[in-house]
Amino acid sequence: MPTPSEQAQALTPAAIHAAYDLIKPYVHLTPLLTCKTLDKIASTPQTPEALVGTPFEGQTPAKPQIHFHFKCENLQRIGAFKARGAHHALLRLIQEQGEEEVKRRGVITHSSGNHAQALALAASTLHVPAYIVMPEISTPSKIAGTRSHGAEVTFSGSTSVEREAVVAEIQAKTNAFLIPPYDDFNIICGQGTTALEMERQFAEAGKNKELDAVITPVGGGGLNAGVATYFSDKSTRVFGAEPSFQGADDCRRGLGAGARVEKVSTLTIADGLRTPVGLLNWEVISDKRKIEGVFSVTEDQIKAALKLVLERMKVVVEPSAVVGLAVCLFDEEFRKRVEVEGGEKGWDIGIVFSGGNTTVEAIAKLYN
Amino acid sequence: MPTPSEQAQALTPAAIHAAYDLIKPYVHLTPLLTCKTLDKIASTPQTPEALVGTPFEGQTPAKPQIHFHFKCENLQRIGAFKARGAHHALLRLIQEQGEEEVKRRGVITHSSGNHAQALALAASTLHVPAYIVMPEISTPSKIAGTRSHGAEVTFSGSTSVEREAVVAEIQAKTNAFLIPPYDDFNIICGQGTTALEMERQFAEAGKNKELDAVITPVGGGGLNAGVATYFSDKSTRVFGAEPSFQGADDCRRGLGAGARVEKVSTLTIADGLRTPVGLLNWEVISDKRKIEGVFSVTEDQIKAALKLVLERMKVVVEPSAVVGLAVCLFDEEFRKRVEVEGGEKGWDIGIVFSGGNTTVEAIAKLYN
Repeated sequence: MPTPSEQAQALTPAAIHAAYDLIKPYVHLTPLLTCKTLDKIASTPQTPEALVGTPFEGQTPAKPQIHFHFKCENLQRIGAFKARGAHHALLRLIQEQGEEEVKRRGVITHSSGNHAQALALAASTLHVPAYIVMPEISTPSKIAGTRSHGAEVTFSGSTSVEREAVVAEIQAKTNAFLIPPYDDFNIICGQGTTALEMERQFAEAGKNKELDAVITPVGGGGLNAGVATYFSDKSTRVFGAEPSFQGADDCRRGLGAGARVEKVSTLTIADGLRTPVGLLNWEVISDKRKIEGVFSVTEDQIKAALKLVLERMKVVVEPSAVVGLAVCLFDEEFRKRVEVEGGEKGWDIGIVFSGGNTTVEAIAKLYN
Repeated sequence: MPTPSEQAQALTPAAIHAAYDLIKPYVHLTPLLTCKTLDKIASTPQTPEALVGTPFEGQTPAKPQIHFHFKCENLQRIGAFKARGAHHALLRLIQEQGEEEVKRRGVITHSSGNHAQALALAASTLHVPAYIVMPEISTPSKIAGTRSHGAEVTFSGSTSVEREAVVAEIQAKTNAFLIPPYDDFNIICGQGTTALEMERQFAEAGKNKELDAVITPVGGGGLNAGVATYFSDKSTRVFGAEPSFQGADDCRRGLGAGARVEKVSTLTIADGLRTPVGLLNWEVISDKRKIEGVFSVTEDQIKAALKLVLERMKVVVEPSAVVGLAVCLFDEEFRKRVEVEGGEKGWDIGIVFSGGNTTVEAIAKLYN
């Protein structure tokens, strides 16, 4: 088994291209949307009052020129980019182990969220049995969504020890292949195809340049690592964004301390970003040639960004999806950099809207 | 001044084409979206239990096959189809009265909602002064939206007598031209361009047939009358949809009684549909060759349809926008007709999502 560091060497743009060839028939080409209203808001300096109580209090507000390009993975199959990685991991598994063997043994994962539905969909499409271990406290709609693709759902406790015990039990019976949610070479390559599409769609829009920057959310880190891998031989800068609530900014803190933070316990409203960055993803994200920086935003900033997307763009996204937009709107360090490096022309910034799986009740709870 | 009946004679598909030529540079070509999940839900029979307490209790649930095509006027400029009519009415006024005269006198309207913003935008684009009379109780975001386009907002009481007094006062000073919100030939022709785009976009999707039906919301009736005018020489059936709450279904009731209902007082959550149908619109909508029927839906049905659009399509619409979808999902008379006339192939149904101007706080209030 190669080490994470050895595996990271093989994470190349070519690996993302190969993944795309494989998954293309199975995933949506999601739109890359622009929004003049949000460009205008982001390109207006914050008021000095808005900076009071933040680390930027007293500074002259930055005057960046920002042109957004929103990659709408909320409109991806199962409503999140996770469909890319899950299809890729399963298609590779079939290539490596043979269709018969994979169909006989099936696949297994543990997830309370979008990866569960993504693997269930991929398995159903490719006629492979899927065993999904979900915490008992999972929301009924996510359990129903996973079951609707024909997966066998087994419940467990919420801790990783409890979940892994149930996975081991099912594997003992079925010998099913484990498909992890984010810390995995093939998952990363699948998520990285998001970047490939963004680059092509931006080129088709006829700007005759490359995207200046792309920001993705960082939870387990698969999406960010995949996107950074794809852009590693291009001029596009890649950034990560995290919630800061209750230490959810494990990646940012880890980069500051020079060591991966292994445990996180947070109830941020960005519920897709509650996990620590995986080992392999850390190898990529901590590589300064690949990731320029990771920023964090507060719960109020996430809510403000989410409100803008819902009301102005008229697009439904989940809270995790808007952390990158929140960085562009509120982080003066980032905004100053755009002002200085982008100048009058500004930056074309790609924002990955990672998913849209929320409910009206959840929205009601946020803005009540 | 021609009578409504004489004016209705001039409402022809050619008039809609002419309107489109005029407004095309000023409005968005909004997307026509499909959604397999909603098709599946609409094509699944309701349970007998779901019909208990409805007029359809005890009937065998219909088995329609429905393929939706959602015209996303929530993504139109100012977030609603009203941008079409307002631009058309102002462009015609300039043609008829001369640019100098219109710029000198300006335009005026009274509206608490989307028409106010639409006229403000059109006037700002064409460098014409705009006077908008809004009730004092209008939501601050709508007042701000109207002002952001440079219109002069004057407040009035909420009754039509109070509003008209303020309009008369401003007209006495400015001699501004009145552009009414819906009961007007040029407004109707503008709104009808929605239908023209739908037909073209559906043809481009390569179905080699015409849309079987189109349903629009009916408030003042401008959109419905315009769409019905456009399809009046085609095979596409046009229907209307209204809320039933507190008598908001004035059009449906009027059609039953054979006479227009002149007054409506309702606080339905579909706040764009609280007005009675206008005189000219009634001439069109009560013409059986143009409109096949008008259906009404309950507040709970509107909320259920809105929830599906937000959570499954990931698109933000206002409650008024989903009354047509709610008819397709819940009205057994309509569903039975699709089953009988559409058979196994079913119907391709165009749904006009009329607008998307809502707030997260308003959504929170609905689903709390």
